Amino acid sequence: MKKPSKDTISRLALYLRALQELSKDRSSDTISSQDLSRELNISPDQLRRDLWYFGQFGRRGVGYSVESLKNKLSQILGLNKSWNVCICGVGNLGSALLTYKGFKEHNLNIIAGFDVEANKVNKKKNGIDIYPLEDMKKVIKAKAVKIAIIATPYFAAPAVMERLISCGIRAILNFAPIKLVAPPQVKLRNVDLSTELFNLTHFLSQA
Amino acid sequence: MKKPSKDTISRLALYLRALQELSKDRSSDTISSQDLSRELNISPDQLRRDLWYFGQFGRRGVGYSVESLKNKLSQILGLNKSWNVCICGVGNLGSALLTYKGFKEHNLNIIAGFDVEANKVNKKKNGIDIYPLEDMKKVIKAKAVKIAIIATPYFAAPAVMERLISCGIRAILNFAPIKLVAPPQVKLRNVDLSTELFNLTHFLSQA
Repeated sequence: MKKPSKDTISRLALYLRALQELSKDRSSDTISSQDLSRELNISPDQLRRDLWYFGQFGRRGVGYSVESLKNKLSQILGLNKSWNVCICGVGNLGSALLTYKGFKEHNLNIIAGFDVEANKVNKKKNGIDIYPLEDMKKVIKAKAVKIAIIATPYFAAPAVMERLISCGIRAILNFAPIKLVAPPQVKLRNVDLSTELFNLTHFLSQA
Repeated sequence: MKKPSKDTISRLALYLRALQELSKDRSSDTISSQDLSRELNISPDQLRRDLWYFGQFGRRGVGYSVESLKNKLSQILGLNKSWNVCICGVGNLGSALLTYKGFKEHNLNIIAGFDVEANKVNKKKNGIDIYPLEDMKKVIKAKAVKIAIIATPYFAAPAVMERLISCGIRAILNFAPIKLVAPPQVKLRNVDLSTELFNLTHFLSQA
C-alpha cells in the first residue's frame, strides 16, 4: 500500500471525528458518502478516494456502515489502543496542553510533564506529575511513554529533542516555533500555529 | 480562478516559509522546483501544480526567482500587509498565543486580549492590553481588529463567537475544543490540536 500523505491522515481524522459525533445523534446504522461529505464540507469524490484507498467500500444505495467505518479509521490512525504522552516544557502552552480536552477523547493520555525550572518540578500540575529533565529516561521507561510533545521556548527545543531521542522516543510533536530536524528513524511533526491563520488572511485579502 | 483548498493554502504557507529561510542562507536568486520540493519533503509535481495554479512558472533550467515567488505567495496569502488580531480568553492557551513568536514574523499583530475574569482585565499581560468582554465592540473598532482567536473553555466559545460576529469580525480561529459553526459570511477555522498527533499514532501503529 502506498504511504498515505499527511493530508490524507488529517482528513481520516476528520472523518473519524464526524462519525463519532454522528453516531451519538442518529439512529441509522449507515451513512452515504454524500451525507458524510456534506457534514465535513469536502467533496464526495475526495471522501470516496480516501476511503477506497484504505479498502472501505460503501454499498450503492446503502452507504457506509457507521460502526465498521469508525473501527477501521480508528485502526488506521492507531487510535484503537491508548498512547502515553509526555509534555516537555510546562509554561503557558505546555500547561494548556496538559489539560487539553481533545487528547483524552482520542486515547491519548498525557502522563508526565518535564521542565527545567526548580519551582515547577517534583509536584503535580493539573493532576499530572512534573519531573526534572534528569528523570526523563527513568520516567519514559517506567510509564511506557511513546509520544513526546515539545512546548519549550524555541532555543531549548533542539536539546530537548536530542534528549528525548536518546531516551528512546520515536514520535515527537514540536510546538516550539523552530523547525526541528530529526534522524530518519524518528517521526517528527513541526506544528506552526500561524499556518491556520493564513487561511483567514487569504480569505480577508480576497474579500 | 477555482478557489484553492485549505490544504493548498497550507502548502503555500510552507513554501513561503521555506523561501524565507532559504533567502537568508543562500546567495543564488533562483531555486529549482527539485531543490525546493526536497527542502519541503513534498513531490516536485505537487509543488509545480500548486504554483502553476497561481500563475507562477519556473523557467526550465533556471527555476523560480526566489524574490518574486516570495512576493507572489505573500500576496496570495494576504501577508503582504499586516493584520490586527485579538485573543478571546487569556488562560494558559490564550497567554501562550499572546506571545507566540510565529505570528509577528508573518505580520500578524496580536493587539488585544479579552477575558471575563475581573482579575485579568484592565491590565497588560505580556505587554498586551486585556479588556473585559463589554469593551469588545469599542476595542475592535478602535484598533481595526480583523481576525479573532478563540481560546476560551469550550462551554464559553459559542457565545464568544456570536459576540465577535456582532462586533463585525469576519475571520475567526477557534482553539476551544468544540466544533463551532458560523454563518456563511464568516470564515471560521476550528483547530483541533489532537489531529497533529494522529500522524504520530498512525506511524507508531504501523511500526
